[in-house]
Amino acid sequence: MPFDPETLVYNDAGLIPAIAQDAESDEVLMMAWMTAEAVRRTLETGRVTYWSRSRQAFWVKGESSGHVQELVDFRLDCDRDCLLVRVRQTGPACHTNRRSCFYTAVRDGAEIELMRPED
Amino acid sequence: MPFDPETLVYNDAGLIPAIAQDAESDEVLMMAWMTAEAVRRTLETGRVTYWSRSRQAFWVKGESSGHVQELVDFRLDCDRDCLLVRVRQTGPACHTNRRSCFYTAVRDGAEIELMRPED
Repeated sequence: MPFDPETLVYNDAGLIPAIAQDAESDEVLMMAWMTAEAVRRTLETGRVTYWSRSRQAFWVKGESSGHVQELVDFRLDCDRDCLLVRVRQTGPACHTNRRSCFYTAVRDGAEIELMRPED
Repeated sequence: MPFDPETLVYNDAGLIPAIAQDAESDEVLMMAWMTAEAVRRTLETGRVTYWSRSRQAFWVKGESSGHVQELVDFRLDCDRDCLLVRVRQTGPACHTNRRSCFYTAVRDGAEIELMRPED
């Protein structure tokens, strides 16, 4: 079946959540949002492209930092309202310079930092 | 630092997205939503508990199907607006009886089914 980004289910703001997973380590790196046009650009260019809600602009991941995400596989879920992009991540994915945005765990009721910023 | 679910960032509906990942295989299984109370229940009971937007009710994953998610690790992202729950998944995570909800890939412009429902 040919894929049409318009057949995905977007929220009231026209956005769909996209989970980025490292295609090599399977680590979950981050979650951000895409518009239909961001989905189209991601598939066409192979460069993962989100929609920045704060800047209200397309956000080609790594465009300024160099920490790009090369698309390896593009997946959608059963309800068509969430995406999973498997990527080849250059450098840290998180703006804090950590490999993943999910560097905080809750254990025994306390927050624990699991990874440090990379050099 | 002690963890308080109220310090997470929820959307206008009081919800935060939660990504479930298999703690053994690292496969991304599904994405669903939690309220602050669902976060509390998940941490207290060790049974992953979402908020069902369609039923407007707490949804203890697997309560009716038996396909429970036992919490292994609870993580939050840098912006505190997305959760990652690493789980021990009993049976398939998807309501279609597939291991993961992300069973559809887009390759060369077409949708491809990556896994079949389990028996």
